[in-house]
Amino acid sequence: MSANDSYPEALRRLVAYFQRLPGVGGRTASRLALALLDWPEELLQGFGQELAALRANVHWCHECGNLADGERCRICAAPDRDRSLICVVEVATQIPVFESSGCYRGLYHVLGGRLLPLEGVGPESLRIAELHDRLQGGEVAELILATSPDVEGEATAHFLAAEFAEAGVRITRIAAGVPVGADLSYADAATMARALGGRRSFD
Amino acid sequence: MSANDSYPEALRRLVAYFQRLPGVGGRTASRLALALLDWPEELLQGFGQELAALRANVHWCHECGNLADGERCRICAAPDRDRSLICVVEVATQIPVFESSGCYRGLYHVLGGRLLPLEGVGPESLRIAELHDRLQGGEVAELILATSPDVEGEATAHFLAAEFAEAGVRITRIAAGVPVGADLSYADAATMARALGGRRSFD
Repeated sequence: MSANDSYPEALRRLVAYFQRLPGVGGRTASRLALALLDWPEELLQGFGQELAALRANVHWCHECGNLADGERCRICAAPDRDRSLICVVEVATQIPVFESSGCYRGLYHVLGGRLLPLEGVGPESLRIAELHDRLQGGEVAELILATSPDVEGEATAHFLAAEFAEAGVRITRIAAGVPVGADLSYADAATMARALGGRRSFD
Repeated sequence: MSANDSYPEALRRLVAYFQRLPGVGGRTASRLALALLDWPEELLQGFGQELAALRANVHWCHECGNLADGERCRICAAPDRDRSLICVVEVATQIPVFESSGCYRGLYHVLGGRLLPLEGVGPESLRIAELHDRLQGGEVAELILATSPDVEGEATAHFLAAEFAEAGVRITRIAAGVPVGADLSYADAATMARALGGRRSFD
C-alpha cells in the first residue's frame, strides 16, 4: 500500500501534478501538497491563479526571444545596455545565469535550441534569420557565441561562426572555465564571470 | 543581481509562491517555475484549479479527524477495519506512515497537535473530548498512543494515559528504539537508552 492511498482524491490529484515537475518524486510531491493544506485560502487562490494565467502573462521578446512581460524584455528595453554586443544563447532560461554574473551589459539573442541533425533540428528551426535581421542595422560590433560547452553546443557555435563570418562583426566564443558537459542553466555566477571575461576570437 | 531579476513579473510571482513551500529554496523555486513554462495549457489550468479548490475539496473526517473526501475518511468508512483498536496520532499527515507499514488494520484518532504548555496549547486545544465520545460506545478495546518519541510527544502520551486510565480500555505506547536498517555507530544516546530499556526476550 502506497503512503498516500489513504489521501482524499483532491490531494492525490494535487500530488500527481507536483510529481510532473523535474526532480520531484513521490515523497517530495506529497510533502509539498500536504504543506499547502496549511496555507491560508488567499495564498492558495493566488498560487492557483498564477499557474492558470502563466501562459497568458509571460510573453517572448520580439527582439531577442527572451521571456518578457510584454512585447520587449526588460533587457532590450533598458536604456543602459550596450547595444553593440549580442550574446547568443540556446534558451531564454539561460539568460538569468549570465545576468547574475554581473559582467555583461550587452544584449542577448535566444536561438530557441541548438542544432540536433539526428532529431531533425536544423538551422531553419533556430532563430537565425532573426539574428541576421538584427545585424542589418550595423549597430552590432560583436557576437558572443554562448551555446553550451558540449558536442551539440560546440557544433552549433561552429555553424554560427561560419554563418556570420561575412556579417562584418567580431565573433567570439565564451571561454573555457565552464565545466565541459554541464548544463548552462545551472552554472554558478563566478564560473560564468570567468567564461565571459576569457572569451576568445572564434577561429 | 539575483538570477531571476530579469524574469517577467508573472514568473517572479510564481517563483515566490514556490519558495513558500517547505524545503524549496530560490534555485529550486526558479527551476520548478521555469519547468512550468513548458507545460501544455490544459495541465497548467488543471494544476491551478486544484490549488485554488484545495480547501473546498479536502475535508476533515467527523469521526477521527483524518483528511477526507467528505464527512468520513476512507479508513473510518472501510468495512474491513478493526473497530476495537484506535491509534492516537498528533496530525493527520502521520496516518499514511502507519498505513504504509501494512501492519495496522484498526482506526485512528487525530489529536490535532500535542501539548505545548509554554505556547498555550493545553488539553482543551486537542481533540480529547471527541476521543472520550468515541470510547462511549464500548466497542473500543485498545488505545495505542502514537505521539512522537520526543519530549512533548512523551508528555502528551503520559497525559492521555492518565486521562483515559478509567475508560476501561487497554492503553499502549508504540515502541521506541533503534530504527530498522540504521548503523548503530551513529545512534544517539537517548535512542540507545530507550532501545536498551525496552529490550525483550529473544525468541
